[in-house]
Amino acid sequence: MSAGYWLGVDLGGTKILSGLFDDELKLLARSKQPTSAEGGPSGVFARVVQGVEAVIKEANVAPEQIRGMGIGIPGQIEVGTTKVKFAPNLDWRDVDLKPLMPAAWRWPLVVENDVRMGTYGEFAHGAARGARNVLGVFVGTGVGGGLIINGDLFAGFNGNAGEIGHLVVHWRRGSELESIAGRKYMMKRAKEILDDAPKRVRKEWKGIDLAAVRSSQLAEFYQKDDPVAVQLVDDAARALGAAIGGVVNFLNPEVIVIGGGVTGALGDTFIERIWEIAQRYTLPGAATGIRCVPAALGDDSGIVGCAAYAKAHPPLKAADVA
Amino acid sequence: MSAGYWLGVDLGGTKILSGLFDDELKLLARSKQPTSAEGGPSGVFARVVQGVEAVIKEANVAPEQIRGMGIGIPGQIEVGTTKVKFAPNLDWRDVDLKPLMPAAWRWPLVVENDVRMGTYGEFAHGAARGARNVLGVFVGTGVGGGLIINGDLFAGFNGNAGEIGHLVVHWRRGSELESIAGRKYMMKRAKEILDDAPKRVRKEWKGIDLAAVRSSQLAEFYQKDDPVAVQLVDDAARALGAAIGGVVNFLNPEVIVIGGGVTGALGDTFIERIWEIAQRYTLPGAATGIRCVPAALGDDSGIVGCAAYAKAHPPLKAADVA
Repeated sequence: MSAGYWLGVDLGGTKILSGLFDDELKLLARSKQPTSAEGGPSGVFARVVQGVEAVIKEANVAPEQIRGMGIGIPGQIEVGTTKVKFAPNLDWRDVDLKPLMPAAWRWPLVVENDVRMGTYGEFAHGAARGARNVLGVFVGTGVGGGLIINGDLFAGFNGNAGEIGHLVVHWRRGSELESIAGRKYMMKRAKEILDDAPKRVRKEWKGIDLAAVRSSQLAEFYQKDDPVAVQLVDDAARALGAAIGGVVNFLNPEVIVIGGGVTGALGDTFIERIWEIAQRYTLPGAATGIRCVPAALGDDSGIVGCAAYAKAHPPLKAADVA
Repeated sequence: MSAGYWLGVDLGGTKILSGLFDDELKLLARSKQPTSAEGGPSGVFARVVQGVEAVIKEANVAPEQIRGMGIGIPGQIEVGTTKVKFAPNLDWRDVDLKPLMPAAWRWPLVVENDVRMGTYGEFAHGAARGARNVLGVFVGTGVGGGLIINGDLFAGFNGNAGEIGHLVVHWRRGSELESIAGRKYMMKRAKEILDDAPKRVRKEWKGIDLAAVRSSQLAEFYQKDDPVAVQLVDDAARALGAAIGGVVNFLNPEVIVIGGGVTGALGDTFIERIWEIAQRYTLPGAATGIRCVPAALGDDSGIVGCAAYAKAHPPLKAADVA
């Protein structure tokens, strides 16, 4: 039997990334489509088909050599099925992806949460390679995460394990980590800070649509010591550090991988700072030998994770069960 | 071969509980000794020997029928060994228990953290029986915890997983859960509250040594609506609820078992309140079907856990390895 090929599809709120990988998970071809979520599940899946066909063609692989496919979705998945329970950015509820597959696609399909697949990618072929217990933290619009426990993705009882953004980091006010370190909430807070800021500071932000600020723009403000950006980023680092320090005590993972748009734009010093703060909270000996590292795969963590996860988790065939 | 017997020893800061169990983990005999930690490891272990000999005699079991023994220690254990790295209540550092075993004790020994063994007891034969993923929370002098993941105790990279008392629940002040919900810290806070309290309230607490207040006494004050106790207990419930709600999002265990002296004294309504608060923080669907229940084994959770853990984790023999 010849070596097989694997497909990974990262289906995000704005774009769809597709990748074709060889049996060693080397990326052979990559493609990008707009999601255009307004087309509904079948419209979106038509663009998944476009992307997949493009990478198959580019890599010049025969479809019968494809052994499996993983799709990452920004939402909740019904554990062990191909059903999306809820994906707010896509406006999907109870969508099963399996029936949307073209009849010609005879390979097995696995569906998982996109951030969890990103964590799996970093675990299988990225910054956390070789570790058995990994926490992935992705700081972007919100704060997502994923958990690898004993060498496999950990789903939890209702399939939503890994949501570090929803650890409570202020018990009195009821704030969750995401409400301090996610870009969406940072920019809400920016408005409050600007309302009380001196004219000189307000001038810098004049005309900027806060809701649409990108991570790179926030990083630029931060690098020129803008007091609003400094306060937002410092608070994010402190809240992330406190949450991660607590998780080192509580779950004690071997590697913490930090990725996502905000982190990427702010650079590795931001991650070093988070880890320095985290260690103020860790019990004696609890952090010894634990690494906190930047994600290594960038935008590709999702497609790598999807392909690697599909390879490691072949769905049971009737013959295997009997 | 005849059915075997198992020993569980819960070695606490003030008392040592020993239990002898049959192969179905039924408790046959139970014994209690003072720890008298000032005698150092060999002095303390002499009292472990007393306790174990007492239960063997009481149950009238031949020592050669004993198949294993677990010891729970209030401290950090070097994963997979019989070595205690650090146990502050015993004032132990780097103590190996194996060499302290009498030569006549030919059964295998496993050593683990006491709170983790309590969690294992509730998982194997208590309130969380049948679940695969369990969080144990024990509220006493401090707040300890344990994690069962995929049907086994989860140690973490440095062997201290489960320390929910050291999740950070106030990122600005850097407070950990234990600093709000542990009895030791509650009573520190009591002093601050009393300093500002009206005379009528201060009178009720007059002559009471705050550092020595027991859980039952705190519960009595609470039940008669003493404002100091009400504030302490309400804050503890809120902080525990916030932490547990976050953990439901982040780790998504199937069962949360809450035990320990403070919880036992305050009763099941305290646990119901914590769970009600926790659910204010959980993501849609994340708490569905998850149970938050009082510990069922009381003081015996540790000895049951130690015996059950020894049974489930026979140490590898040279023959097995080769």
